Formats: sequence, structure tokens, C-alpha cells
Amino acid sequence: MMQSTRIHFLIMFTAVLLPSLACTAQDTPLRSWNDTTTKQAIISFVEKVTREGSPDFVPVAERVAVFDNDGTLWSEQPMYFQAIFIFDRIKALAPQHPEWKTQEPFASVLKGDVKSAIAGGDKALIEMAMATHAGMTTEEFKGIVSDWIATAKHPKTGRLYTEMVFQPMLELLAYLRANEFKTFIVSGGGIEFMRPWAERVYGVPPEQVIGSSIKTKFEIRDGNPVLVRLPELNFIDDKAGKPVGINQHIGRRPIAAFGNSDGDLQMLQWTAAGKGPRFCLLVHHTDADREWKYDRSSHIGKLDEALEQAQRNKWTVVNMQHDWKVIHPAEKN
Amino acid sequence: MMQSTRIHFLIMFTAVLLPSLACTAQDTPLRSWNDTTTKQAIISFVEKVTREGSPDFVPVAERVAVFDNDGTLWSEQPMYFQAIFIFDRIKALAPQHPEWKTQEPFASVLKGDVKSAIAGGDKALIEMAMATHAGMTTEEFKGIVSDWIATAKHPKTGRLYTEMVFQPMLELLAYLRANEFKTFIVSGGGIEFMRPWAERVYGVPPEQVIGSSIKTKFEIRDGNPVLVRLPELNFIDDKAGKPVGINQHIGRRPIAAFGNSDGDLQMLQWTAAGKGPRFCLLVHHTDADREWKYDRSSHIGKLDEALEQAQRNKWTVVNMQHDWKVIHPAEKN
Repeated sequence: MMQSTRIHFLIMFTAVLLPSLACTAQDTPLRSWNDTTTKQAIISFVEKVTREGSPDFVPVAERVAVFDNDGTLWSEQPMYFQAIFIFDRIKALAPQHPEWKTQEPFASVLKGDVKSAIAGGDKALIEMAMATHAGMTTEEFKGIVSDWIATAKHPKTGRLYTEMVFQPMLELLAYLRANEFKTFIVSGGGIEFMRPWAERVYGVPPEQVIGSSIKTKFEIRDGNPVLVRLPELNFIDDKAGKPVGINQHIGRRPIAAFGNSDGDLQMLQWTAAGKGPRFCLLVHHTDADREWKYDRSSHIGKLDEALEQAQRNKWTVVNMQHDWKVIHPAEKN
Repeated sequence: MMQSTRIHFLIMFTAVLLPSLACTAQDTPLRSWNDTTTKQAIISFVEKVTREGSPDFVPVAERVAVFDNDGTLWSEQPMYFQAIFIFDRIKALAPQHPEWKTQEPFASVLKGDVKSAIAGGDKALIEMAMATHAGMTTEEFKGIVSDWIATAKHPKTGRLYTEMVFQPMLELLAYLRANEFKTFIVSGGGIEFMRPWAERVYGVPPEQVIGSSIKTKFEIRDGNPVLVRLPELNFIDDKAGKPVGINQHIGRRPIAAFGNSDGDLQMLQWTAAGKGPRFCLLVHHTDADREWKYDRSSHIGKLDEALEQAQRNKWTVVNMQHDWKVIHPAEKN
């Protein structure tokens, strides 16, 4: 009897203790970050702005952190994932557009010749974006994005695109939110391309996603109010557009900004120029083995002037190869 | 000794009990609402969407409520308060613009002839808005608005404009937030005209304020990054623009919408057309003694088609005279 009670007690004790240990392990912030000066810089900033009575204390309402998406929260090679979505949509819509067989840039996409398709530069890209992103209601577009993101696979890794997010950045988002930061996405990508999955994948709700957009129009169709997506640019949330988008949507200056390319430079400058403690960070893609290695001369995610500015202004630069234990979540297992 | 202990106990008891009573009284929702079917409709909606296990239960993330500002959260007579701000700014800026003495609509404003000033319609209003809202940085404009809102007085009541808010609506905002709703302002007024004081007065932070806007441009001035306000319309957040603005900023459909005029009709239609429980409410200005009485034929806050639709769709209509015990906060005392 005594023995049995003792075993019972041990089982009880283990049952109570184990989940709490598991919980503690999970609560350790930034587990996938190596213990480098980068990780220390993040923790030191968060601790000083959240410590009541500290001269650097920032009230909860002002704890706004902004994150670029492509190359900062998920990979962006061999091309922006939204560009792959556009090409997939062109292929899916081709039967309804027989004229695309001979009309550039669509003809090249249908032949699988991406290089020729994008040779037309911004004009070609915008034409393809409009042909695939406009002409339906917002609800319909949400369904199209949701279907694609649930099934499409990355050409190199064969993984879902939502599995190509950066595990250390997911932990950083969670760590900031645990410290009562409000986390926003501020991306050059399409606002409605990110919203259908950003809450599930990043924990960022639709109202905290800022991005590029096309115009929409309110209509009553068969007695049902809809918003129709028009083939007309509304806003480009890139470079000098990022502080504009931040002001438009958030209406106050972030105290922390996270990017990876020259497209994020003005967002970091705008953030850094506020009064009081500020934190600016660039993700430098330095890991050819586990992800990609590129910076100053890359067409995608070019990091040149922003890297200069980071050095000059002592912004934090993540060296992916050295600072990150794990890149994508699958490596955890 | 016994007596003293008893008295001590009574003091202790009173000291413990009184604050808790005070607290309870303050926590009673919608105190300034009479106990009419309007108040009951609000409470019944909130209770059914927040009751776990109820077929009408709505998860916290989806509890989005949108509020018009002019005529819904504060008064709007004898003209929109932002129009008075514009006239005050024209007077303040007149010494720097000698040409305004003879140039309409400015000349009429400077003569105190508001009727002639606004006779030029939208074109004149936009011209005056641009002359007073553009040409400075966002930080400078915030300072101008903050100074005005802290000092300017309403021409009829002599009160600060922030004292012309509706006490019952402040309680409604608080009641919804206590039930884990996220409350947004969706106003035809200027987004940057509301943000400097909306958090203090309504408890609505800048990132939850949606409104009309002009374009801004990022610049580095003397090494300092600024956003400059340009004399160019960016977005009109009124009528069919309201669902567009809601989608742009929030990215999901509200479950509750509160307005007072035909300018809010599309916002209410968009809200009502979603699946699941919805709540739409119009504030009908029926109290000539305590506030103003106007609807179908008013130039400001015209309520005509939306009132028809409210009757047809069984939306809730506030009869200010009957439903509200108190209109402005000062009447509480």
C-alpha cells in the first residue's frame, strides 16, 4: 500500500511537473538564436523599454514594432513568392485567355520562360499583377490566395511557402508580443496576398498587415454588397512608401523596425529618427547552405545602401549563418 | 474597548465596502441610456456574441466594431467641427497670405461670412482644406491640431469640442471593449485631425482611426527624415468609400457598425451583409432642446435613405430624446 501510494505520488508529481517543464522550455525566448551579440542586443533593448522606472521605459501603447515580410519573415529566393503566385495564376487562367498564347509577357510565362517574362521590368510585372489580382471581389481573391498558399510548393525545397518562414523571426515576434509590443507587417508585397494567412502563420491579424494595394470599389451586386478589385494601383508600400504606409495605417512612429534590404531603408530611418530608445535590425542572408547568400548585387532583396547605413548608425545586423541555430521550422525536428 | 473595536470594524468595513460599491456603479454598462428597447437591443447583441457555446458566439479576433465620428460620437452642428478648424486656421494664417483678402473663398472666411465661403461647394472646401492641412510635416500638423482642440470653443455652447462628445456613446465604446471588441473610428473627417485626441477622448488608438486623407511624402530634411503633407487628396472615407477604407485598414468585416447619416449607409450595408450575427445602429438627432434636431433635409448629417433602410432592415435607431438620459458629459454633473 505504501509502495503503491508512493508510485501514485510519483506519477502525480511527474504529471504535474512535466507539462510545466515543457511550458518553461517553450517560454524561453529566442531559442533558435545563438547566444551572440545580436541576440543580446534584442534582449537588452526589450528589457530596457519594458522595465518600469527605467529612463528608457516605453508605455505599452507606444510599443510598435514593424516587420518587412519578404526576406525578413520568410525566404524570397529564387524570386518573391508572390511572383510565383502570379505565374501560377496566369497558368490557371490561361484557358480563359487564348490571346495570352502570343501576348507578352503572358506567352513567356506559359512557356515556362520566367526570365523573358520579367525582362519587361516593372511594366510587365504590373500588367501580370493586374491580370491576376483584379477583376474579382475581395472575398473571391481571399479564397484564391488561401487555396494557393495551402497547396503550392516551393520549387527548390518542395515545401509549402508557409514552411519557408524563419523560425528565429517567429520567436522574435512572439517574444515582442509577450512584452506587450504590437507587431505589424510592412511589406512591399500585396496587403491582400498576406492577410489570409498572416494571422495563422505569424500571429499578425489582418488589421496589422500593411502592404501594396490596388484600388477597390463598393458595389451592390444582386442585392449583395461587394468590394470589387480594380486593375489600378492604389499604393506601393516599398522604399519611401513604407514610412507613408506606416503613418497612414498606424499613425504613430514604431520604436523597432526589422528589414533585410534597401527597400526597408526608409522604414528604418523613420523608426530610428524618433525620440527615445529605438531598435533597427537587418537580416543579412549569409547562409548559402541552409538558405541563400546574397546582398549588394542581388536583384531580389538587394542589400547595399541599407548595410552601409546600418554600419554607420550601429543598427543590428543578423548574420544568418552565425546568429541562427535554425532557419526554417522543419530543421527543428 | 469593545465599543472602540466595533467602531474600528465599522470604519474598516465601510472603507472596504465603499470603493467596491463605487466600482460596481461605474462598471454598470450604458448608465446614460434609458432602459428602452434600444439599450436592450445593444445588450442582447453583445451578450449573444460573447456567450461561449451560443450558436451566435463570435471569437474575440472577429469582434470588430466601427463608429462614424461626426454626429455619431460627437455633435456636428452648426457645421462639422473640422470646418470650424479650417476657418480658424485661415484666420491664423491670413497674415502670411495677403492675397486672401481678395481671393475667394478665403476673403469671405476672413470677413466672417461662412455662408459665402462654402457657397463654392466641394471645390471651395477642398481648396480651403488644402491651404490649411498641407505644406507642413505630419508632426507639425499634429501640433497644430493638438493646440486647437485644447483651446477652441464651440460657438453655441462655449465648450471645448472634446466636451461635445456623446456620453452614451463613450459608455457604448467602453462596454464593447469590456466585452473584448476592438473599436475603430471610420469617419469622413480627416484621419490626422482625429488621431491626436481620439485615444484620450474615445480610448481609440491612432492605429484604429480611419478617415479621409491627403498624400504625404517621405523626405530627409537637414538629415532628419520627415513626412510632408501634400496638397493632394489621397482618400475620401465617406459613403461608398467607408467599406473601402474598412477593408484597406482592418481587412475584415465588422460585426457591428454605428453611424448617423446617409454617409454611413454603405458602411452599415457592408457590415450587415456578413454571415452570422450583425448589429447596425443609427443615431437619430431628435433632441432640439439638449442637442439639435435634424434628419432628411439637413445639409449636415443628412439622414434620409439610411433611415429608410434602417426601417426596412430592422436596424436599431437611437431616438436621442428618448433613449439618452444625458447627451454631453457635462450634463452628468
